[in-house]
Amino acid sequence: MSHLDVQNRRIENGFRLTRVGITGVRKPIIVSRHDKDNHVTAEIDLFVDLPSTQKGSHMSRNVEILTEMIDESVRRKATSLEELAAKICRELLDRHEYASYGEVNMRADYFLEKTTDTGRNSLEPFKLIARATAKRGNELMKLIGVEVEGMTACPCAMETVRTRIAGDSPKMAEAIGDMPMITHNQRNQTTLMIEVPEHVDIEADDLIDVVESSLSSPTYGILKREDEASVVINAHRHPKFVEDVVRDILGKILDRYGQLDDSVHVTVRSESEESIHKHNAFAERITTLGELRAIEDK
Amino acid sequence: MSHLDVQNRRIENGFRLTRVGITGVRKPIIVSRHDKDNHVTAEIDLFVDLPSTQKGSHMSRNVEILTEMIDESVRRKATSLEELAAKICRELLDRHEYASYGEVNMRADYFLEKTTDTGRNSLEPFKLIARATAKRGNELMKLIGVEVEGMTACPCAMETVRTRIAGDSPKMAEAIGDMPMITHNQRNQTTLMIEVPEHVDIEADDLIDVVESSLSSPTYGILKREDEASVVINAHRHPKFVEDVVRDILGKILDRYGQLDDSVHVTVRSESEESIHKHNAFAERITTLGELRAIEDK
Amino acid sequence: MSHLDVQNRRIENGFRLTRVGITGVRKPIIVSRHDKDNHVTAEIDLFVDLPSTQKGSHMSRNVEILTEMIDESVRRKATSLEELAAKICRELLDRHEYASYGEVNMRADYFLEKTTDTGRNSLEPFKLIARATAKRGNELMKLIGVEVEGMTACPCAMETVRTRIAGDSPKMAEAIGDMPMITHNQRNQTTLMIEVPEHVDIEADDLIDVVESSLSSPTYGILKREDEASVVINAHRHPKFVEDVVRDILGKILDRYGQLDDSVHVTVRSESEESIHKHNAFAERITTLGELRAIEDK
Amino acid sequence: MSHLDVQNRRIENGFRLTRVGITGVRKPIIVSRHDKDNHVTAEIDLFVDLPSTQKGSHMSRNVEILTEMIDESVRRKATSLEELAAKICRELLDRHEYASYGEVNMRADYFLEKTTDTGRNSLEPFKLIARATAKRGNELMKLIGVEVEGMTACPCAMETVRTRIAGDSPKMAEAIGDMPMITHNQRNQTTLMIEVPEHVDIEADDLIDVVESSLSSPTYGILKREDEASVVINAHRHPKFVEDVVRDILGKILDRYGQLDDSVHVTVRSESEESIHKHNAFAERITTLGELRAIEDK
Repeated sequence: MSHLDVQNRRIENGFRLTRVGITGVRKPIIVSRHDKDNHVTAEIDLFVDLPSTQKGSHMSRNVEILTEMIDESVRRKATSLEELAAKICRELLDRHEYASYGEVNMRADYFLEKTTDTGRNSLEPFKLIARATAKRGNELMKLIGVEVEGMTACPCAMETVRTRIAGDSPKMAEAIGDMPMITHNQRNQTTLMIEVPEHVDIEADDLIDVVESSLSSPTYGILKREDEASVVINAHRHPKFVEDVVRDILGKILDRYGQLDDSVHVTVRSESEESIHKHNAFAERITTLGELRAIEDK
Repeated sequence: MSHLDVQNRRIENGFRLTRVGITGVRKPIIVSRHDKDNHVTAEIDLFVDLPSTQKGSHMSRNVEILTEMIDESVRRKATSLEELAAKICRELLDRHEYASYGEVNMRADYFLEKTTDTGRNSLEPFKLIARATAKRGNELMKLIGVEVEGMTACPCAMETVRTRIAGDSPKMAEAIGDMPMITHNQRNQTTLMIEVPEHVDIEADDLIDVVESSLSSPTYGILKREDEASVVINAHRHPKFVEDVVRDILGKILDRYGQLDDSVHVTVRSESEESIHKHNAFAERITTLGELRAIEDK
Repeated sequence: MSHLDVQNRRIENGFRLTRVGITGVRKPIIVSRHDKDNHVTAEIDLFVDLPSTQKGSHMSRNVEILTEMIDESVRRKATSLEELAAKICRELLDRHEYASYGEVNMRADYFLEKTTDTGRNSLEPFKLIARATAKRGNELMKLIGVEVEGMTACPCAMETVRTRIAGDSPKMAEAIGDMPMITHNQRNQTTLMIEVPEHVDIEADDLIDVVESSLSSPTYGILKREDEASVVINAHRHPKFVEDVVRDILGKILDRYGQLDDSVHVTVRSESEESIHKHNAFAERITTLGELRAIEDK
Repeated sequence: MSHLDVQNRRIENGFRLTRVGITGVRKPIIVSRHDKDNHVTAEIDLFVDLPSTQKGSHMSRNVEILTEMIDESVRRKATSLEELAAKICRELLDRHEYASYGEVNMRADYFLEKTTDTGRNSLEPFKLIARATAKRGNELMKLIGVEVEGMTACPCAMETVRTRIAGDSPKMAEAIGDMPMITHNQRNQTTLMIEVPEHVDIEADDLIDVVESSLSSPTYGILKREDEASVVINAHRHPKFVEDVVRDILGKILDRYGQLDDSVHVTVRSESEESIHKHNAFAERITTLGELRAIEDK
């Protein structure tokens, strides 16, 4: 060992460190799936743990791994962001021989073609989230996640408005019937993440579908007049609290991934940029498939 | 001159620099106005220009000014953020004897008590913007600005929905009449800034009023059920494009500040976080009172 | 119950939600401690959990609590941000009778007067973090945290440079001896958070001291030439990896808070904006006092 | 005209609006240049002006243009971001027949392979900036810009430290000679933008070279020990204020683009995240080639 290897020095009275590494690395990645290449720019964090006896982690090894596995293998495309994260995570444990834990986090912009009510195609932006974690000697765990922007319309204000307007006259009450009434609606940001053992395959596109179908309405870049009205009417026919969004997603996750193990972790978070307030409304469930099933059985 | 004064070295073939200074300084400031103390945390940028013959600007002088005029004079309260900016700007020119231009920018959170429809008080957050600029030998100019969050409801989607619903039956058309129909509504961020000679006094609270009254509706932190319905109904009775918001503000500025000089600069910017899209709608006018009057005269 | 209380509706096949509430509320708060008033602007998030049988959480109650406890009690000053968070958290459980868990998060700018090497006073900005969490029937836990910006200088590059320069000639090697050599140094952001039972009192100012004394050097807004040299020399005499910063903080926490219970949670995170890279270096330890003591005993 | 075309309604007493459009659109774009495809994710803003007599701008036309020119023409690659911006800008004026001004802004991550001192390849991230503006009937102007992260080392602190250390003994003074001394160094962010008539072609890669060669040192993702020492030594052999960075860039722009017209606009901005302060140092020049030449002639 060179005396210049300051990181490798033995120290006494050190403390173990949970995570040591680099954050904010940006890299272009090609994800090739179902015969389609997605070129994404990922923001990446890499960590290993550090035993109490060693002064420093060799952080340049982290960048070497990224360079070899991403920069120099442009032609070896990743089949998914989480699969690439898993490979990098294994390399982390290989090259940091002193580490017992490795972690790789990635986030990237992602685009999917969606179709509006009138059949117009619109290329919509989403965020992909991938994480791989491994304890040496144990199976690697991978997390697949999506961030989806959409629309929520408030069911509570809708009922209060209906009562107030219907209260003006019985004739009005009859006319409006169960017509969707005005309410506040707004941009909503919902995150869905599932953590599974490495051999399990989850499609990010499916997670985006689960979230979009649980909002008051998906949103689109391009909307001509008739599409716009359809989105507005659709959203007001499905008024939802953030609580409803999270629960509808949980129900669909149980339906779609019922075959997976009880230990699978699920995180759902929904935040609405309330148009009537300057603050946001927020709902979250952090759970396992096992817990969700137990509740369902009640 | 000490040889250590690297900044002060003479250089040849240098270029004049438009602005040299420090950015991102955070300071607590007490603004005392109308017998009320507002304690704000300001983010401050300070600049002077630099002649082509001098190597560097003495940036520590900028911090000295802030320390003397803000940290050490806690009891000498500022009467307004822009008044404080003006004083600092004059000090900049005094202490950077080589400079011909000084500029001070400030931004701070600000709170005002507002009252909802049912008489409930709600302390609402806004942003104050202040800028002072001076060319040596000329009158100092100061800018007073506000950033206001509120709500817009779209007039176009409302009409399309009305036509579609009314088209279903004449009875329905009669019943709904000119009742506000469902549309997309959303959080809106509007900025209004006025730049005037130093001796002119503009109240930031007035600017906030001008903006709030030009939106579809102001928004509130606290809204019980009846207040919420009132905000929703109010917003739908005043559907507005961002274009409408900017124009209504321009009209009110002409009314309220009609006595000011033609040369006074006005900037209005309104951005709606469209609930049906993932992108924003934006409108802006950068102008002078003189230009606005000329248009009005047409 | 009014039929308008949509939130209160009974639902079947619902799922329990871990956290439901509001995020991004901004409020001015007066923290009065040791006979000194600190006026801070806090960003606040409030949450309770929601049982599977109830449709929605009454989010307006969260804002009511904030209004009563912050806006309307300007004269009843908080003794600390975390004490205020604790009071609000208890109110959350009182007013959301269906909830079994409450959580309050706060972040605020904070300023402390620091003294440079030559005795100059400089008002420095920090961030305060406060969190209160409570399970119904259990003791409330509170978290006190600080975010501190300072400076790290890299020990590894320093040794490589020394070897290269000393290698040029024995005379040079003798001359430079153990003189601090050039290396990359940079802005560092370190977070220290301690979570304790409500009755335990931790001073945020002490946490700031712990962090600042563990960096290569604290940093200052105002530095005249001699101060600047002192900071640079001081930082290069204490070159530190982010790993060193975290470990030095952990050691000081054990020294200073040795009397506290084994169950007390400690989180330390240090991130350096590496001047030679476009990415950051990061180290973290999440632990308990008990774990730290066990390691120390080895 | 349909009565549903709310935007197209005639209004009286309206005001002209300087810019109306959409902001924050995200799109994947393929830039194909010198036989190499760069897949970038761009953030796009589009604006036209609006005459005083028209109620609203047809914002969905803006998205239609993006869809046709980006989403549906994946195989028709752009030769540069600014060339694509120019085409979109022309379409804006074509489809908004009432507009006399069009503007398109784009920003995107961009990667270039760079080589360290020891010959190691490192894929480095930069930001591209493109803008196209056109007044109806006039030639379109396009702006090409880059944001580059690198490193600056402070010349002033270096001299103060040298004097203090040399002052300790004549022997020391002799030994250190003009050896680079310790100083504060830090991450720097520099922006260079040039605005030219449409027919003029500027390479973004050249602008990146101009900036990187004007910093104390470029920075790299991957640096093994010897590379790291080289970057540190190189940076300390070229200590620079932000003022120096801006001026060196201006000099190189004059050299490299001397054949361009006097009217060409140049903006240079350099900001250093000072490692000894919590605030940044900033220098800027906004000018034309003509102004720069006049200064040079003095």
